[in-house]
Amino acid sequence: MKFDLNKSLEILERTPKVLSLLLTNLSDDWTLQNEGKDTWSPFDVLGHLIHGEQTDWIPRMKIIIEHGTSKPFEPFDRFAQYEASKGKSLNSLLSEFTRLRTNNLRILKSAFLDENALEKKGMHPALGEVKLRELLSAWTVHDLGHIVQISRVMAKQYKTEVGPWANYLNVVNS
Amino acid sequence: MKFDLNKSLEILERTPKVLSLLLTNLSDDWTLQNEGKDTWSPFDVLGHLIHGEQTDWIPRMKIIIEHGTSKPFEPFDRFAQYEASKGKSLNSLLSEFTRLRTNNLRILKSAFLDENALEKKGMHPALGEVKLRELLSAWTVHDLGHIVQISRVMAKQYKTEVGPWANYLNVVNS
Repeated sequence: MKFDLNKSLEILERTPKVLSLLLTNLSDDWTLQNEGKDTWSPFDVLGHLIHGEQTDWIPRMKIIIEHGTSKPFEPFDRFAQYEASKGKSLNSLLSEFTRLRTNNLRILKSAFLDENALEKKGMHPALGEVKLRELLSAWTVHDLGHIVQISRVMAKQYKTEVGPWANYLNVVNS
Repeated sequence: MKFDLNKSLEILERTPKVLSLLLTNLSDDWTLQNEGKDTWSPFDVLGHLIHGEQTDWIPRMKIIIEHGTSKPFEPFDRFAQYEASKGKSLNSLLSEFTRLRTNNLRILKSAFLDENALEKKGMHPALGEVKLRELLSAWTVHDLGHIVQISRVMAKQYKTEVGPWANYLNVVNS
């Protein structure tokens, strides 16, 4: 499947709704547990997604459009959410993510990116030259990857409870 | 986390809604592709979930309650969906799954399972003796595992499009 802006939007637009439906009014046993030391709970993942909306995808798109490869992206802080999410409720994180995503997609759409613009390059601090189409593909995959992660983390909370079915349910062993 | 019927219901009740939101009106490029030979597309997974509602979880609960270990479960057909889903639309599969799940959860709730009932055992054709609480835990984890799978299969469709980000986005390499 080739990159297609409209098909990417199909995913990017529904992620806040999917996460809201997946997580709203769930017990803390599902949303605040993780997969072990140095791993994230669904709550942590939401904070990470918020930080991405604030500092990663659209800010980097703007750098590519305005500066090309001459101005490298700011490195992304993968741990910012621990401080930023402190004391907040899961529902407030969901609202914040939804609001930020809605606004960012408005910016994305109003950029009217054509094939030429999508080929523009930026400078990633670790990966080197990257194309705008790759950045937008990565944003889309990043959403899906974190839906994978959230669902997997929740599944693992029942790892011992499934008894012998652990042999069949690979998700608890992954 | 210990098995808890209400916490399991939190997941089991929302799965049809989550899948509907995740898949309705998506391009076929997202929903009909798989991960390679002998793997399932999101469309295939929906058929599998439908077959589970029809022949696996609640039918097996009934066998445990009525027959205990004296009557082994019917083996589950992991390939039934290829025939059963033929010619159907994704939206019709989503409706069918939602209808079956709603009905099955009505049966589950009306069984008024107490701690004693949850300890009852049945006979799995391959796994041997299993408890009702393990069956219901497995049903819950099975839902989450297939949300994982569907999201992962979709993410992989952009594997080449993310360019160098494939190094960071483990979901496309899993």
